[in-house]
Amino acid sequence: MIKVCILGVGKVGTHLIKACIDNIDIKLTQIYSRSYKSLKEYIGIIPVTQNINELEIADLYVVALPDDVISQLDLNYLTGLVVHTSGTVSYSALKAKQTGVFYPLQSFTKEKSIDLKETPFCLETKFAEDYGFLVSFTKLISNVYDEMNEQKRQKLHLAAVFANNFTNRVMGIVFDVCKEQDIDFNMLQPLIQETFLKTKTLNPDIAQTGPAIRNDKGTIKKHLKQLTGTNKEVYKILTKSIQEKHGIEL
Amino acid sequence: MIKVCILGVGKVGTHLIKACIDNIDIKLTQIYSRSYKSLKEYIGIIPVTQNINELEIADLYVVALPDDVISQLDLNYLTGLVVHTSGTVSYSALKAKQTGVFYPLQSFTKEKSIDLKETPFCLETKFAEDYGFLVSFTKLISNVYDEMNEQKRQKLHLAAVFANNFTNRVMGIVFDVCKEQDIDFNMLQPLIQETFLKTKTLNPDIAQTGPAIRNDKGTIKKHLKQLTGTNKEVYKILTKSIQEKHGIEL
Repeated sequence: MIKVCILGVGKVGTHLIKACIDNIDIKLTQIYSRSYKSLKEYIGIIPVTQNINELEIADLYVVALPDDVISQLDLNYLTGLVVHTSGTVSYSALKAKQTGVFYPLQSFTKEKSIDLKETPFCLETKFAEDYGFLVSFTKLISNVYDEMNEQKRQKLHLAAVFANNFTNRVMGIVFDVCKEQDIDFNMLQPLIQETFLKTKTLNPDIAQTGPAIRNDKGTIKKHLKQLTGTNKEVYKILTKSIQEKHGIEL
Repeated sequence: MIKVCILGVGKVGTHLIKACIDNIDIKLTQIYSRSYKSLKEYIGIIPVTQNINELEIADLYVVALPDDVISQLDLNYLTGLVVHTSGTVSYSALKAKQTGVFYPLQSFTKEKSIDLKETPFCLETKFAEDYGFLVSFTKLISNVYDEMNEQKRQKLHLAAVFANNFTNRVMGIVFDVCKEQDIDFNMLQPLIQETFLKTKTLNPDIAQTGPAIRNDKGTIKKHLKQLTGTNKEVYKILTKSIQEKHGIEL
């Protein structure tokens, strides 16, 4: 049985707490948060603390706190492995003896539960002798994991921002455009789902369609007329991006 | 039995030809294309022609040709209903007596077959008395259709460009970023699929996560350092779009 303490009850922390509670091979020894409000729902179920200097003995401490907080904690008094869940921060930001990274490549929202078993975890430890232990723990949580150094993880995090945050914002623009003419957003669902299923089998460059790749100037002009502000800029730059990628003279 | 002639064997035309051949209530009377090469595979199966003045009698003519070609055809000699499949062109661009629009809201690539039954069709006819007939035909092809005027259809087409073409280009950037560090693109599949499944249940504004909405300037700076050229511009403008939408001071 692996003894685990989770620090932080934000989106990632909450999903990890749930996965630890559900697993008979993990004993969740303690949950830490600065805020009493976030801890409230766990009182009586799992030991909680708001004091960073009173963490109990555990095999693993998972720091699921904002990037800028990670380096502010003094965890040198701990004896177990201390890992954070950030895609961009180095393990050396952690002030602890044995450090590492346990980065889940997924987008968490509190409103929707995620199957962690299918979520890829990127693992790294400062000391090679800690790596096997981190793998044993990860296997209890997920079926997918990979050792990854900082440079590669940072690139993956950048890719994830495009794949999730930016495509989601583009969907937000779709939402707004639909609203202007009272169009039901769900009418676009078959198109949206097809677009993303396609990425499983087709390279996006081969799957590319639309006025930009056809260099259909008439349609592009019509579209730009219907847009203003930042949405118009987004249309222009993504059209440029498609045309550059496919060698169309601007 | 509805007699149908399809003009054009591009992506849309090819999918429609297949749907018509598969349906016992439709008789595909003829296929037209300017190019002999595109017609070759149908010879001996369905009557084909390269001569626009020799179209045979049919109930419906579906013009699945490029936008700029639609207005160049003189189809005034025909007696049936003539519809085009464009999202942006008016039915009045068609030079024919009875005209209309039969616009499928889906992204077609020749490499991948599409279930037309789930594809929404946007319908419009110049004469009210033709509408019922267009609906009867559409019902043989798809379970989803809606009457839609030109203004609304053009807005929907614009929304579709964001939902499909632009999200697909963003996926292309993800592909390129992964390649730089030899990262397996498939590692991002759970994140990609989650992102798009989420649009079924959550408003994109609520689903938004990432450094832009957190206004995490450190991470944004790190990311911009890793990017150049148009990809960097795309990062900047989509970050701006997220921050504006969520009222973050720039």
